Amino acid sequence: MIASRPDGRAADELRSFSFERDFTKMADGSTLVTFGQTRVLCTASVNKDLPPWLRNSKEGWVTAEYSMLPGSSPERVPRRSGGREKEIQRLIGRSLRAVVDMTALGPISITVDCDVIQADGGTRTASICGGFVALHDAITRHRQAGQVKGDPILTECAAISVGVVDGIAVLDLPYAEDSTADVDCNIVMTGDGNLIEIQGTAEEQSFSRSQLDEMLDLAQSGISQIITRQKDLLNTPPT
Amino acid sequence: MIASRPDGRAADELRSFSFERDFTKMADGSTLVTFGQTRVLCTASVNKDLPPWLRNSKEGWVTAEYSMLPGSSPERVPRRSGGREKEIQRLIGRSLRAVVDMTALGPISITVDCDVIQADGGTRTASICGGFVALHDAITRHRQAGQVKGDPILTECAAISVGVVDGIAVLDLPYAEDSTADVDCNIVMTGDGNLIEIQGTAEEQSFSRSQLDEMLDLAQSGISQIITRQKDLLNTPPT
Amino acid sequence: MIASRPDGRAADELRSFSFERDFTKMADGSTLVTFGQTRVLCTASVNKDLPPWLRNSKEGWVTAEYSMLPGSSPERVPRRSGGREKEIQRLIGRSLRAVVDMTALGPISITVDCDVIQADGGTRTASICGGFVALHDAITRHRQAGQVKGDPILTECAAISVGVVDGIAVLDLPYAEDSTADVDCNIVMTGDGNLIEIQGTAEEQSFSRSQLDEMLDLAQSGISQIITRQKDLLNTPPT
Amino acid sequence: MIASRPDGRAADELRSFSFERDFTKMADGSTLVTFGQTRVLCTASVNKDLPPWLRNSKEGWVTAEYSMLPGSSPERVPRRSGGREKEIQRLIGRSLRAVVDMTALGPISITVDCDVIQADGGTRTASICGGFVALHDAITRHRQAGQVKGDPILTECAAISVGVVDGIAVLDLPYAEDSTADVDCNIVMTGDGNLIEIQGTAEEQSFSRSQLDEMLDLAQSGISQIITRQKDLLNTPPT
Amino acid sequence: MIASRPDGRAADELRSFSFERDFTKMADGSTLVTFGQTRVLCTASVNKDLPPWLRNSKEGWVTAEYSMLPGSSPERVPRRSGGREKEIQRLIGRSLRAVVDMTALGPISITVDCDVIQADGGTRTASICGGFVALHDAITRHRQAGQVKGDPILTECAAISVGVVDGIAVLDLPYAEDSTADVDCNIVMTGDGNLIEIQGTAEEQSFSRSQLDEMLDLAQSGISQIITRQKDLLNTPPT
Amino acid sequence: MIASRPDGRAADELRSFSFERDFTKMADGSTLVTFGQTRVLCTASVNKDLPPWLRNSKEGWVTAEYSMLPGSSPERVPRRSGGREKEIQRLIGRSLRAVVDMTALGPISITVDCDVIQADGGTRTASICGGFVALHDAITRHRQAGQVKGDPILTECAAISVGVVDGIAVLDLPYAEDSTADVDCNIVMTGDGNLIEIQGTAEEQSFSRSQLDEMLDLAQSGISQIITRQKDLLNTPPT
Repeated sequence: MIASRPDGRAADELRSFSFERDFTKMADGSTLVTFGQTRVLCTASVNKDLPPWLRNSKEGWVTAEYSMLPGSSPERVPRRSGGREKEIQRLIGRSLRAVVDMTALGPISITVDCDVIQADGGTRTASICGGFVALHDAITRHRQAGQVKGDPILTECAAISVGVVDGIAVLDLPYAEDSTADVDCNIVMTGDGNLIEIQGTAEEQSFSRSQLDEMLDLAQSGISQIITRQKDLLNTPPT
Repeated sequence: MIASRPDGRAADELRSFSFERDFTKMADGSTLVTFGQTRVLCTASVNKDLPPWLRNSKEGWVTAEYSMLPGSSPERVPRRSGGREKEIQRLIGRSLRAVVDMTALGPISITVDCDVIQADGGTRTASICGGFVALHDAITRHRQAGQVKGDPILTECAAISVGVVDGIAVLDLPYAEDSTADVDCNIVMTGDGNLIEIQGTAEEQSFSRSQLDEMLDLAQSGISQIITRQKDLLNTPPT
Repeated sequence: MIASRPDGRAADELRSFSFERDFTKMADGSTLVTFGQTRVLCTASVNKDLPPWLRNSKEGWVTAEYSMLPGSSPERVPRRSGGREKEIQRLIGRSLRAVVDMTALGPISITVDCDVIQADGGTRTASICGGFVALHDAITRHRQAGQVKGDPILTECAAISVGVVDGIAVLDLPYAEDSTADVDCNIVMTGDGNLIEIQGTAEEQSFSRSQLDEMLDLAQSGISQIITRQKDLLNTPPT
Repeated sequence: MIASRPDGRAADELRSFSFERDFTKMADGSTLVTFGQTRVLCTASVNKDLPPWLRNSKEGWVTAEYSMLPGSSPERVPRRSGGREKEIQRLIGRSLRAVVDMTALGPISITVDCDVIQADGGTRTASICGGFVALHDAITRHRQAGQVKGDPILTECAAISVGVVDGIAVLDLPYAEDSTADVDCNIVMTGDGNLIEIQGTAEEQSFSRSQLDEMLDLAQSGISQIITRQKDLLNTPPT
Repeated sequence: MIASRPDGRAADELRSFSFERDFTKMADGSTLVTFGQTRVLCTASVNKDLPPWLRNSKEGWVTAEYSMLPGSSPERVPRRSGGREKEIQRLIGRSLRAVVDMTALGPISITVDCDVIQADGGTRTASICGGFVALHDAITRHRQAGQVKGDPILTECAAISVGVVDGIAVLDLPYAEDSTADVDCNIVMTGDGNLIEIQGTAEEQSFSRSQLDEMLDLAQSGISQIITRQKDLLNTPPT
Repeated sequence: MIASRPDGRAADELRSFSFERDFTKMADGSTLVTFGQTRVLCTASVNKDLPPWLRNSKEGWVTAEYSMLPGSSPERVPRRSGGREKEIQRLIGRSLRAVVDMTALGPISITVDCDVIQADGGTRTASICGGFVALHDAITRHRQAGQVKGDPILTECAAISVGVVDGIAVLDLPYAEDSTADVDCNIVMTGDGNLIEIQGTAEEQSFSRSQLDEMLDLAQSGISQIITRQKDLLNTPPT
């Protein structure tokens, strides 16, 4: 059955992926993340303004914004941010916050902007993977400059999509699969193998516990490969 | 460990719940759903206007809106709809659509409005449970009037929250538990025991596969009790 | 001519009306007010934030919001607040402020939310009647808790609609009458028999001074019955 | 007591008022109306677009917009339209529609724009008085051009403010009186002496039926003077 | 070729223009400026609120707003402010700021509102010419009252439109020419003959350097006539 | 004097610039344009929807949108589009339309999106230069596919900024110069050496005709180098 994937991958195979660090130079951290044809520019910007509920605390904050550039799809995507975009940026923000110690970060705020340059499925999970790298570099630079005293990164953070297509559980769906999947599931995990978020939706038909288990197995294997890559990369500090 | 729940329930015990059908009389279907102190007024309104992408098809559509009345919480909730509300109403809409055959529904549109009258945790899952009853009654009335020819309801639809509090998996969390939970998970299932949606989030710390399994077991047992109640109730058609 | 009212009432007869106190439990005051088929949930929420022009004074403030739930009418009402809603909530706010001594209330702000659950004419006047009860209970509770020192309620506040239908002045119009009335008039009065607000509009044709006088007589009689009921009810403090 | 008015007028005396027809030349009708220091530019613009509910009828429509120019007051007025502006423009629109036969007007739409150039109390009633003149001229010009066949103007329309200041009923209040009035009342009447609209509000204290009667007497007398002026003026058709 | 202008003017001839000072009385400065059929009401309002970036400085600020009244054109102009209006008000604000010494103005803010009462081409340049007079009068009054100590007006400020119509460069275009011009150019200059702003746009076809030079010559001559008039007028202080 | 430019360039020297065609693959045309540190991603998307005023014509349309990605600057840029963005996208749209024959383009609409990835001055002129290349490729692809019959590109289109810094006219200003310039001028020209648009603004002090001439000379020389590069590049059709 594996042979039937549109790009010839095995059901448990990730698309070719990469992280281009410092793709832009103005933000504190910047990564162009690629999963197959999907490309997302992630930048992390540090500033002093904290959200209202942290004004008098010593804790920091991490938030995210997500958008698709209009030309990222064959049919132009209007620029206005709607419910889907807000839902995705809340997911990215929660995921990244789960691996940051806000007390160690101290009273600064970091915004991770994820702008999809080319969309071919899995843009929200790519945003989390690339956003983590940009966030890590921004924090490292502020630690190097002595502006962050502690070591706020608790562990890595990565995400992948899984789904059920024609009854078969598959890993890392491009748009062609995603748009016809029976079930669509996004999973976020930590560097130590725990779950941060699971969002599974029956698109065409409901799914069983055993199908959920298959998807979780695929995701776990895919995410561990991504996290290995993140670790290798971040071993070298940014310049 | 069970004794420690604030309201004395067992970890696998639902709050007392009920459906008050036809709580209001103007909408095509109307249910006041109660889970403990949480109360949501669900109404289903039928109209002829279809969304743009269905204009020339013969299919129907089901959508949902969700809001909290300002006085539903001890601290007044401002009336403006934000990202959280949009995300919840998208979840309710997807869940209800999963159990409706749009071709059998025919070219009508049904809006299910879920207005939280009193909020004590689990408002989105209560909205799904009550919204299904209101939707069912609205469709039944239109079938009785000959305006819907087919039998569009495929199966029941219910939802419940589960979570991990102080390391223990618990079912149907009130606000007091929800606000301190390590993990928060909302699960939607069908009358035939399949999953429609799973949304699990690490609020305080990440969670393991075995914790996820425990939560899924609790949810499955709770949802089957709710669906039994829905079936009993809907056995009697609305007047 | 009296026999011609759609619900068989006399021209000077109120619909059956009631106040269900503490219909919800989270807000400081809460009343479900019913006039015939019209039902409005009124909640009063106290908070510390004062409007800008009172920031440095010791006076309090009372404001109101009004909305119709989408399922409150046979044809679904969209959720967005427009000119009509704003105009009504300004009327409710002015009316309630007219019976409150802001200095005795002290530096707190009370928002009275009026959400129409079922609409059959007279929703704005029902909101004033029910809003007064919710406001009174919220203030009483804060007086009992020692958070309000004075006795800010000066007198009762109630309102009713009157109109001219087929040339006859009638009291308390349901939707069926309201939608065909020649003249539509809303009158707000105090417990001591004075006028707070009069808003009369020629819908179909202009009206004479003597018709205005007839309407004022009907309103005065109707409002005094409502105020008697409010007094009876509020004689017993909330629990 | 009369001597105490800030501008020395008698209690039942109007401010000096005038209508400057065709103050601007682009709109179909245009009047600069003056009541004392209050000046409002009223223009009436005819177009073919009818509101949605009249699309397939042969009736016409009249609507109004109201705004204050930022420099119209000693303290600059921000340009954004809020609840007060919407409420006033609804009043102007209803008042003008009450004297127009929409069937005779035929399938055109007229917008009357009232822009306050200088504000010293009574801007909404001046807008109605001047708006009527602009509307009348626009309709006359379209009748002259054969584009309106019938005679849609049923009678004149004028309005004035009355109030209670220091316990005394007074006519046509400038800002200095309006801002300290106990009661504020706006009354709209037809050329044949009937009421179109009455809006009375207790600003500082509630008012009695007999005070209301006094205010109505003053308004009736003031409005009849304005209508006499309108008749004189409109006797001469626009050029 | 000159004979071909719709109003018979020579190519290098301004329309008849005038400034009516203190056309309204509430604002600190007010001018009704007229260029042919174009009429703009300009008011200047002084207040204490400075923009955020000047909060802790001793400098002042000048800003502008621009709008067209709905009845200013034969076809009614909707009231909402869009990109065109924002672009124009930014131009007016920049132009006026160029001739004001913000340190001498001191910590006050002046808003110049330009409301087009009648539109026949050249509304933005008329706004600059009239706005300067209103601004000058507002500042003079504050100097007379001792609230502005220095002499903040550095020089005069005026503007005019030039264009290429049927291949000929012309000065001060009314709507009839503007709407068919090949090139449209707005030029702002100071009382000492320097340029503040030049905005030239090829509407129908691109233009050469020599055509630009011709237009600049025309503008220079027209603006110097306007500035002479401004100087004459402002020689007499406002009363 | 030349030696004083922050990056050591001569006053009449462009920054190093390049066009990376097909930087993304989904849009009909896509170019990453670079001028020094400034980088803008331009995409051109073709669709069938024409603006309302062209619905029944056979002409096409070209429009543009412009935004800065939040991470494009050292201080994060909020995502909301304001007056500056609207003004810039109107300029880009006008400039590109000036070199397209809308009748030859036929009834299609092309949106050119310019998203600034890295901002160091001159983002609007870079957007025009890169937007032209993306637009050209999109049109060429539609001509190759037979969907555009004619040859709608009339000539090339490019733009550059010029300014006066410390009294010296300079070409192609980076942010460090732009932020301290006395005069800031953006010039758009065609491939045949004519002007499409000139926008010159006195930022710090007004400027003379001879300074304007110097800036125009610099711009003309810079733009001709850019157009040479565009011609070379576009000589090879896209694949």
